[in-house]
Amino acid sequence: MNGALRVDGARLWSRLMDMAQIGALPNGGVDRQALTDTDRRGRDLFRNWCEAAGLMVSVDRIGNLFARRAGADATLPPVLVGSHLDSQPTGGKFDGVLGVLAGLEVAQTLNDNGVQTVHPLEIASWTNEEGARFAPAMVGSGVFAGAFTLDYGLSRTDKAGQTLGDELARIGYAGERPVHGQTYAAALELHIEQGPILEQRGLTIGVVSGVQGMRWYDLVIDGREVHAGPTPMADRRDPFRALCEIQQQLYALVDAHAPASRVTFGDLSVAPGSRNTVPGRIVLSVDLRHPDEAILRQMEEAFFVLAAQACERHRVTHRIDAVWRSPAIRFAKSCVDAVARAADALGLPACEMVSGAGHDSVYVSRVAPTGMIFIPCREGVSHNEAEDAEPAHITAGANVLLGAVLELAGMR
Amino acid sequence: MNGALRVDGARLWSRLMDMAQIGALPNGGVDRQALTDTDRRGRDLFRNWCEAAGLMVSVDRIGNLFARRAGADATLPPVLVGSHLDSQPTGGKFDGVLGVLAGLEVAQTLNDNGVQTVHPLEIASWTNEEGARFAPAMVGSGVFAGAFTLDYGLSRTDKAGQTLGDELARIGYAGERPVHGQTYAAALELHIEQGPILEQRGLTIGVVSGVQGMRWYDLVIDGREVHAGPTPMADRRDPFRALCEIQQQLYALVDAHAPASRVTFGDLSVAPGSRNTVPGRIVLSVDLRHPDEAILRQMEEAFFVLAAQACERHRVTHRIDAVWRSPAIRFAKSCVDAVARAADALGLPACEMVSGAGHDSVYVSRVAPTGMIFIPCREGVSHNEAEDAEPAHITAGANVLLGAVLELAGMR
Repeated sequence: MNGALRVDGARLWSRLMDMAQIGALPNGGVDRQALTDTDRRGRDLFRNWCEAAGLMVSVDRIGNLFARRAGADATLPPVLVGSHLDSQPTGGKFDGVLGVLAGLEVAQTLNDNGVQTVHPLEIASWTNEEGARFAPAMVGSGVFAGAFTLDYGLSRTDKAGQTLGDELARIGYAGERPVHGQTYAAALELHIEQGPILEQRGLTIGVVSGVQGMRWYDLVIDGREVHAGPTPMADRRDPFRALCEIQQQLYALVDAHAPASRVTFGDLSVAPGSRNTVPGRIVLSVDLRHPDEAILRQMEEAFFVLAAQACERHRVTHRIDAVWRSPAIRFAKSCVDAVARAADALGLPACEMVSGAGHDSVYVSRVAPTGMIFIPCREGVSHNEAEDAEPAHITAGANVLLGAVLELAGMR
Repeated sequence: MNGALRVDGARLWSRLMDMAQIGALPNGGVDRQALTDTDRRGRDLFRNWCEAAGLMVSVDRIGNLFARRAGADATLPPVLVGSHLDSQPTGGKFDGVLGVLAGLEVAQTLNDNGVQTVHPLEIASWTNEEGARFAPAMVGSGVFAGAFTLDYGLSRTDKAGQTLGDELARIGYAGERPVHGQTYAAALELHIEQGPILEQRGLTIGVVSGVQGMRWYDLVIDGREVHAGPTPMADRRDPFRALCEIQQQLYALVDAHAPASRVTFGDLSVAPGSRNTVPGRIVLSVDLRHPDEAILRQMEEAFFVLAAQACERHRVTHRIDAVWRSPAIRFAKSCVDAVARAADALGLPACEMVSGAGHDSVYVSRVAPTGMIFIPCREGVSHNEAEDAEPAHITAGANVLLGAVLELAGMR
């Protein structure tokens, strides 16, 4: 690796700020939801920059963008670098965009310095990572990796009833390139951490060794609607009576597996939702995570048992609907090591860590050796207009990406 | 009291079933919400029955209906008998209606038997008891008793933005009679229990000695919105963490004051309500009840302290909004005794009990000596289409009402 090679941090920052103008919101964030006119303008801008940098742009049938820089040996599989340009409805300037534009910056740095890599390089921008407009999340990388069929991806529908496929065509990004068939030597993604750990520890680089396993459930508890006044407590079948115990026991379970485990109750609905009626039904969303798949399965089993016991104790009935599951991911040692070595070579304070959030890399890792690089974001805040990151950290992250790309793609 | 005098149970039942046709729902219940066209048809039917029975009908400015039967001495204050004709959106056939139509049945029984009472008799149907369309509940009786001003009552607004006053005028029930100025010798209300106690004990009559004190609060807990994955549990400010402890401690507090105490969590809202985001805010409705005002105050104090402690422990902020309060009510001994004697004279199995629900009688008791009579309803179910009551219990309740009216109004 060439220790003297460095990205142009000012150019990268300037492009991040230019991209943030597209869909800019009053409080500093962006709304650039997938396949809107705003997303099209973001894609156009990125495409123009890539073409101006001499990269060859192609679009696949699910709308993923690829910008290719040739390597010395065209028969070798490319190294893939990418993330996403779409945002949450009130998203930030860095989530996703950083990984895409840092990839472009790596390619331009190679251009500027006349460096030829052995493997080709491809910068990818994945379609609909956020899942804010079209559920589920990570549709583009999921179709790419074979987790979803192309038909499934194209038939996703937004709240207004538009399909992802129709919207792709409408904005001119329904490409011709097949979604499968290309193999890759390695894949890398630079992303803001979206959590507080690097900032709290005063570190610049997170060497991401994997992604937490995740389980999404709906816990549905049915009791009996009765009037709040006349019915003695002992005669009630009150779903909340079981629910608050289950929540406490889940917190205790997760605390027993601290610090890597997580449980989140993001939403709850009550029917009929009348102040003076004992609820007939409560539905609680449960998000359970752990980086070790075996421990996550243990936690899942324990959840099932404790929920059944609490509901039996309080004479209410329940069911647990499995909404989504994503197994714990261990990234490829070759990629994790390349990231760690690049950070070390730059003298940057780093630690190995597990991503708590899902990323395109979760799917990409099914078809290519994959690694991720995290940089700190302010107070761990993301999916929020207040999302922020330090220019110095952004430059450092892009330089680690450059170093890892050079190791994995090889220098001529 | 004339031991031979009995209501015509078949006529009363037939009228209950006729009234249940107005706003009838598929599952046997009714939707006759206050001041809808359906409520107008219910009022019209009642008014026609009253006029056919020779009663003098008047309507006051908040839409309360009064049907007067003359007494021997026109200078004496009337005995008031009544309840309400409006229903919940998916209400039952008996809640409220029974008390109104049983009042009419008492008057007709006196007619049929040529009985003249010393005091006049007035049958009242109170406006908007349920509070389902216009909050709060018991507006008509509340204005009548001076708990609310007339302007307050008329300005209540439904979800569509219609005011109670405009809707009264629209359906032709904005009356001329002043809301105050009439004094009453006594007031009685026959109602289904809306709880399971009479049925469980195999009793026919509840001699209601008072009404539980009630407190309605909104408990608002603010935490910090963060992503469900990356943020370690120890770094979170998760409102649910405090909330489930508060709920458990409230259940324990109320159990310590069993069996008369009640706590109900009827509704809960979560913001932003996203499955993979720790909530920024939770609002829980808390309904706390006890028949002894001093104990209820102790429970309220304990709630404030335990909520503050739990929120401090989990580093979230909170406030408790007092939404409504109704002090515990002790009914007039004269009325309670009249009801007990009437049940005893009829040989009906009865017990003294406290109402767990609010009723128009809570407000009426501010301006007249008041009593209530309960009869069983099936499994204690009310505010539900499945609400049901036995014809024999309905007849028994109306006969107790007749007996108590005769004692309080005096027979010539």
